[in-house]
Amino acid sequence: MLILVANLGSTSFKYRLFDMTDERCLARGAVDRIGESESSCSVEIGDWTEERTMTVPDHGVAVAACLEQLTDAEHGVLKDASEVAAIGFKAVHGGRISGVFQVNDDVLDAMAEMNAAAPAHNPPYIAAMKTLRERFPDLPLVAAFETDFHQTIPASRKEYAIPREWADGLHIRKWGFHGASHRFIATRSAELLGLEDARVISCHLGGSSSVTAIQSGKSVLTTMGMTPQTGLPQNNRVGDFDPFALPLIMNETGMTLEEVLAELASRGGLLGLSGKSADCRDLEEAAAEGDEGSQLALDVYVQEIRRHLGGMIVAMGGVDAIVFTGGIGEKGADIREGVCRGLQELGIAIDDKANQSLRDEGTFHSDDSRTQLWVIPTNEELIVARQTTAVLNQKA
Amino acid sequence: MLILVANLGSTSFKYRLFDMTDERCLARGAVDRIGESESSCSVEIGDWTEERTMTVPDHGVAVAACLEQLTDAEHGVLKDASEVAAIGFKAVHGGRISGVFQVNDDVLDAMAEMNAAAPAHNPPYIAAMKTLRERFPDLPLVAAFETDFHQTIPASRKEYAIPREWADGLHIRKWGFHGASHRFIATRSAELLGLEDARVISCHLGGSSSVTAIQSGKSVLTTMGMTPQTGLPQNNRVGDFDPFALPLIMNETGMTLEEVLAELASRGGLLGLSGKSADCRDLEEAAAEGDEGSQLALDVYVQEIRRHLGGMIVAMGGVDAIVFTGGIGEKGADIREGVCRGLQELGIAIDDKANQSLRDEGTFHSDDSRTQLWVIPTNEELIVARQTTAVLNQKA
Repeated sequence: MLILVANLGSTSFKYRLFDMTDERCLARGAVDRIGESESSCSVEIGDWTEERTMTVPDHGVAVAACLEQLTDAEHGVLKDASEVAAIGFKAVHGGRISGVFQVNDDVLDAMAEMNAAAPAHNPPYIAAMKTLRERFPDLPLVAAFETDFHQTIPASRKEYAIPREWADGLHIRKWGFHGASHRFIATRSAELLGLEDARVISCHLGGSSSVTAIQSGKSVLTTMGMTPQTGLPQNNRVGDFDPFALPLIMNETGMTLEEVLAELASRGGLLGLSGKSADCRDLEEAAAEGDEGSQLALDVYVQEIRRHLGGMIVAMGGVDAIVFTGGIGEKGADIREGVCRGLQELGIAIDDKANQSLRDEGTFHSDDSRTQLWVIPTNEELIVARQTTAVLNQKA
Repeated sequence: MLILVANLGSTSFKYRLFDMTDERCLARGAVDRIGESESSCSVEIGDWTEERTMTVPDHGVAVAACLEQLTDAEHGVLKDASEVAAIGFKAVHGGRISGVFQVNDDVLDAMAEMNAAAPAHNPPYIAAMKTLRERFPDLPLVAAFETDFHQTIPASRKEYAIPREWADGLHIRKWGFHGASHRFIATRSAELLGLEDARVISCHLGGSSSVTAIQSGKSVLTTMGMTPQTGLPQNNRVGDFDPFALPLIMNETGMTLEEVLAELASRGGLLGLSGKSADCRDLEEAAAEGDEGSQLALDVYVQEIRRHLGGMIVAMGGVDAIVFTGGIGEKGADIREGVCRGLQELGIAIDDKANQSLRDEGTFHSDDSRTQLWVIPTNEELIVARQTTAVLNQKA
């Protein structure tokens, strides 16, 4: 079974094509600048790469253009576009629905109800899914919600202390996100540790970051809440913040609530702290040259990861492995070192040399560390491909 | 030197009178229902207690009435009201000023600037201080801000990931509160442990709750943020919440931001979770009879304490003592047990019998616990009396 896994932006479409008989990734590609006068449409199949420039008015045309490249007579991996069994989407927020579903009107409605909670993510997904349904009526679209993996979190760690009619009626609770990535880490770390009932803390650190406690393969606590804006500071989004400070900001700046939240979601995070950049690599360079704002941004980021890490260690009564993944988690040796520093008394000890030289999947704890420290590159697309396959098989 | 320490509500005035030569509490009293047609004015001096019913239109009259009882010819502890050297206040939020100050126009202005952040606390304090300044122009009033003890928290654990002009210009950072109580625990636990550089976690649990990490006597991390509404769930206040959920609540309920925040600050917390009561004892009773909402409220409260506790253990790289104080901290054996349960691997082990039978200052850890577990009744008023004395001595 061939599954195309889509990663949507409002003006972009990235994908990977999987053969699920052996979970091999056959091809990957991307369309950028959708809706502009010139779009770029690229594909990578083994050693063959191609980039075309063309006009792509919407996501429907984008997928059609990708399918054309995939059926290229000489280099293509498909004889016919109909060989694709489904498109799987890493959908963000379904509010009242959380899980993996074939896209229908109800799924789209549920996503639309959460537009206010995920303004950057839900509207472009809904628009693209509608276009694709019209353009490819026979191709099943499957939405794998990022909240799905966190459904196992117990109520005592998921409920806000708010009136029950808002929790139950408006679905306001700590849903958690990055589910595909944390699920991949749960599966892969169980294999690597050889422990089914391992207590693992998965640190997905990148442009968007979250940390999840995983016990026996199940999410039991995570950092993001009702929306992907809370939890750790993000590249340009605020993370945990005090809602009761909002009236003060509004009074003093004359901004509306909408404007203040938009600022917090675009000029907050590492960018807000540093006043300089939302990119960890820029911040590390600037900090090395003595820039105090950049150093503050890195320090707050590390301290917030540590604060949440501690909460998860206590939640599980200990931790067998801490796993780092995502762009920063995989490449940011200094961030990893900052997070794990000074925790020998808790049985967590880093091997500095191993940490600095680690380039791919591997460990960096010292011999006397009770907790294993790992870098594991994530593979969210594979998880979505597996979930999409499962939904198709269930239907069949 | 005699210091009167005041605890103000919008319609109440409670106090203790200290003789600072030996830090003895000479008297305590309270005036309730200020502004109503009948107020009650009570005093307790040694074995003598008295309760008068009278008309008390404002806090100035309340203090005058208390001074009258304190100078009672037969039972009073004062020959003359002028023996009181100062009134000390446990003031809440000074925004740009944090510390201990003799009340003047600038102090009152600074508090007024934070009215939006501490609507339940700042306005009545400002009103009462103004009345008292007029009524007793020669009596120094000293404001000991609750944020003072947390000034030692490093920037990396105090700054929100927001644009710098809001942090610096509007003083929006994690100020922390309950400073007098946590300072008392810092001092007293150092004495009891015989360690100047102890790592202590102070759990102040009551109608209003916060947890603070104390290293070598200094606050290094705390749960409350810009306002006393964040951090742990409170009796009827929400605690940590996702600001990006606010537009969704406003859209669905038609309420304004002000109304939603007012609900979160009055129908949130244990009350919101249980839908039943804001009082832990009620909840424990109801939960024992099978009420699920009450059990949920207790479970969320315990899990949130544990989550923050973990963050503090990691922040300090370990913990020498965990101290419980405040109404729930001192009397809630089951809450204490819930917080400390299952942490043997981290060197924290409870002695169940000692915990259940503890009635006053004492320990409840088991012999093999690396971390000591304590109950220490707090004494916020003594801290304010000490701080007030220090300000007067400094001036002299």
